[in-house]
Amino acid sequence: MKRRDFITKAGLASVGGAATVAAASSFPKPALAQERIEMVIVSTWGRDFPGLGTNAQLMAKRLGDVSDGRIQVQYFAAGERVGAFDSFDEVASGNAQAYHAADYYWKGKHPAWAYFTSVPFGLTASEMGAWIHHMGGQELWDELAGEYGLKCLPAGNTGVQMGGWFNKEINSADDLKGLKMRIPGLGGDVMAKLGASPVSLPGGQIYENLVSGAIEATEWVGPWNDYAMKFYEATKYYYFPGMHEPGGYDSLGMNASWWGTLSKADQALITAVAHQTNDWMMAEYNAKNGEYLRKLVDEQGVVVKEFNDDVYDAFGGAAQEVFEETKAHSDLALRVHESFEKARSEAGGWLKLADIGYSQKRNRVLGL
Amino acid sequence: MKRRDFITKAGLASVGGAATVAAASSFPKPALAQERIEMVIVSTWGRDFPGLGTNAQLMAKRLGDVSDGRIQVQYFAAGERVGAFDSFDEVASGNAQAYHAADYYWKGKHPAWAYFTSVPFGLTASEMGAWIHHMGGQELWDELAGEYGLKCLPAGNTGVQMGGWFNKEINSADDLKGLKMRIPGLGGDVMAKLGASPVSLPGGQIYENLVSGAIEATEWVGPWNDYAMKFYEATKYYYFPGMHEPGGYDSLGMNASWWGTLSKADQALITAVAHQTNDWMMAEYNAKNGEYLRKLVDEQGVVVKEFNDDVYDAFGGAAQEVFEETKAHSDLALRVHESFEKARSEAGGWLKLADIGYSQKRNRVLGL
Repeated sequence: MKRRDFITKAGLASVGGAATVAAASSFPKPALAQERIEMVIVSTWGRDFPGLGTNAQLMAKRLGDVSDGRIQVQYFAAGERVGAFDSFDEVASGNAQAYHAADYYWKGKHPAWAYFTSVPFGLTASEMGAWIHHMGGQELWDELAGEYGLKCLPAGNTGVQMGGWFNKEINSADDLKGLKMRIPGLGGDVMAKLGASPVSLPGGQIYENLVSGAIEATEWVGPWNDYAMKFYEATKYYYFPGMHEPGGYDSLGMNASWWGTLSKADQALITAVAHQTNDWMMAEYNAKNGEYLRKLVDEQGVVVKEFNDDVYDAFGGAAQEVFEETKAHSDLALRVHESFEKARSEAGGWLKLADIGYSQKRNRVLGL
Repeated sequence: MKRRDFITKAGLASVGGAATVAAASSFPKPALAQERIEMVIVSTWGRDFPGLGTNAQLMAKRLGDVSDGRIQVQYFAAGERVGAFDSFDEVASGNAQAYHAADYYWKGKHPAWAYFTSVPFGLTASEMGAWIHHMGGQELWDELAGEYGLKCLPAGNTGVQMGGWFNKEINSADDLKGLKMRIPGLGGDVMAKLGASPVSLPGGQIYENLVSGAIEATEWVGPWNDYAMKFYEATKYYYFPGMHEPGGYDSLGMNASWWGTLSKADQALITAVAHQTNDWMMAEYNAKNGEYLRKLVDEQGVVVKEFNDDVYDAFGGAAQEVFEETKAHSDLALRVHESFEKARSEAGGWLKLADIGYSQKRNRVLGL
């Protein structure tokens, strides 16, 4: 599908309004006028996929709403215009203006991309916000994205993911050896270092592979999204906390040349809606995951288990090995890692006393 | 100061643009036009007060930026137009269009207001987002605000506050008896139930009272804001976690009649900027508190201490007594409390496994 110029009925009505007000410009409250903007957004999420897809679609709608239709967004879910993983090239080439994606999908192009979504033993959503907006993260993201002709803004977060569904108890790192688990990306690299056999499978094929025994374990997202996948029919143990994606930012990635043609006002408008999407979506995951965690336990009899310290020590050691490979890649990768580490230590050091420290104490007193 | 009609230089330039484009309306991309909006914002924060004041001022600027100057904001810090606590009446009466404040300042009018900022043993910032946006919180806030002719949106958060500065160790609830502590609001009510003597003091008077010994303890906000107050010169022990304000939302409170006159597009625009303010400010507090916590310890030799379980049990019991009084106030107060409790249990139950569970495990492995 190609971009098309078109004028909506509402747009024509507003033009009439502009002419009227402009003609009467001696009135004390004259109207302003700005150019229409066409914005094709391709995404890596299926149409109406809960959370990721629905929030990307809502972001597209909001861009129209806040501009009274002046920003004319055409939104394409994965496969509707290009395949999910072709989104990057579609936007970098200028065929589309923007994508909504998880930037770690592009780690094959440069390993530093992973940091701007989430890495094993990485930042929580709260820490990601502190890093990106106030500790130099956005500037490094701009530098990386600039190399590919892109400008990226955070626009959504799924929060801490669950560790996954397992057909047996995981009592030590030895229990991971030889385990056939669906876990893509750097999380899969960590699992491989511990002797597991990580595989990548698209969402639609996980359930059948789990039921057939072709895989023995899988991670997906969290209770809200996992409930819909019915993994509880095939496996018994649902482990927390996931080490692989503790605060996965989604990215509104835009063609940098197109971004540069926008007025400061329109850049500010898009930035505001990206923040809104982030705030709204993180809140939705926290609300829905709470609701569906209860459903999984109460209605489906799922056994929620916690990874023990032995397993987590092994995860931590393997994650460090993965990081060393990333740091050795390039100067930029090293600088991104060091900036990320500082945020983990400093914002993480605060949250340990604050949100973490408080929640632990409160929950103990209230028996939550 | 009264509201004045004025047209900015930039505004006039844009009007010229509108006339030009309107005259050429057969072009494929005509311009749209919308009415100018005047918006006086009064706030409860001092001019340039770090975090609270600076983010309210930034929100005011952003409303102009995203609308290319069409929303003409006049922002008044506390005392510049009305006193901080007169903001409510100024907006409810229609003298100003909006305030930026902490809505628990209005708990004397109705105790349910406190829940929409923060209450003792209440919600963290993450839980507040889940409750307000996805678990019925906003609807209850609308009902309460509607009784006073207001429409409120969350627009900022300070996160978990520190427990405060003490001139002695607090090893049991008995150590709180007779303690003269600056702690206002419901947190002060909790302290009073434990035998302390809570006092309210404006920020500018706390330091001198602490130095003179007129008070023996004080809470303020957190490391970033507390560092600037130099409390470390007068007291030794800095306790965490605070039980009194675990996720304090700020409110963009608007005159409901004025809000009703806005177009859907302008309501959407203001809502987006409120979300942006929330996302940005919470991230800033998490970044700055980490930085200043380190400074307090490394540079000022502050002793950071954790309240023990005995003290927290006492806080919890006293908080429950305070809640009982609130619930007995009215049907609306009871419904707000019950909705809040459900969010605390359900979103809190998820975060216990997710952000809390993950951070604990990660921090142990990394020695953070």
